[in-house]
Amino acid sequence: MDNLDRIFHSLADGTRRAIIAQLASGPARVGDLAQHHDMALPSFLKHMRVLESSDIIVSRKVGRVRMCELRPNALVVAQNWLERERRIWEDRLDRLDFLVETLAKKETPDGTE
Amino acid sequence: MDNLDRIFHSLADGTRRAIIAQLASGPARVGDLAQHHDMALPSFLKHMRVLESSDIIVSRKVGRVRMCELRPNALVVAQNWLERERRIWEDRLDRLDFLVETLAKKETPDGTE
Repeated sequence: MDNLDRIFHSLADGTRRAIIAQLASGPARVGDLAQHHDMALPSFLKHMRVLESSDIIVSRKVGRVRMCELRPNALVVAQNWLERERRIWEDRLDRLDFLVETLAKKETPDGTE
Repeated sequence: MDNLDRIFHSLADGTRRAIIAQLASGPARVGDLAQHHDMALPSFLKHMRVLESSDIIVSRKVGRVRMCELRPNALVVAQNWLERERRIWEDRLDRLDFLVETLAKKETPDGTE
């Protein structure tokens, strides 16, 4: 599984996206994050591990609690991939527009519409 | 499975991302797309179905061949989700910067550094 596979797989679940949205507002304790999700703690921790394995979040022990933080770099990598494909697509549409315009001008060689 | 689940799941595979990249340059026949991938046709068609189920691509029969086309709207939906979370994250960092600056100014009330 390559890096983008792991990142997009992490994003393909509503619970994991909700955790990302929670952490976008700032670091939080695992316990506090879990309270917002109606599921057993082991299931919740499994989602956290998926997010950690793709480097979207990082966690560390602070005293007796585990704190989590967003690492937005992985999200930027995903965004960049989408942006690149969209640009290739849009450039192609621009070239098609240009072609249609050029053909239209050839149809009216005296410059009138 | 909600729409974003399906879109991100589609993106979580190298073969499917390669198909998207191929179609970003323009519509193509299923047969021509498949030639670029070293796998059995049934496996390839399974990837195509995943992409179709998330509305990232659309296919239609033209005579005896099946043509595929990218529908970039689904990719834009994914991009927008990522962009929103990144903005929340960046706004938070900006507020932290502002707080640090404000505190630093309070430390030096005469305005000198």
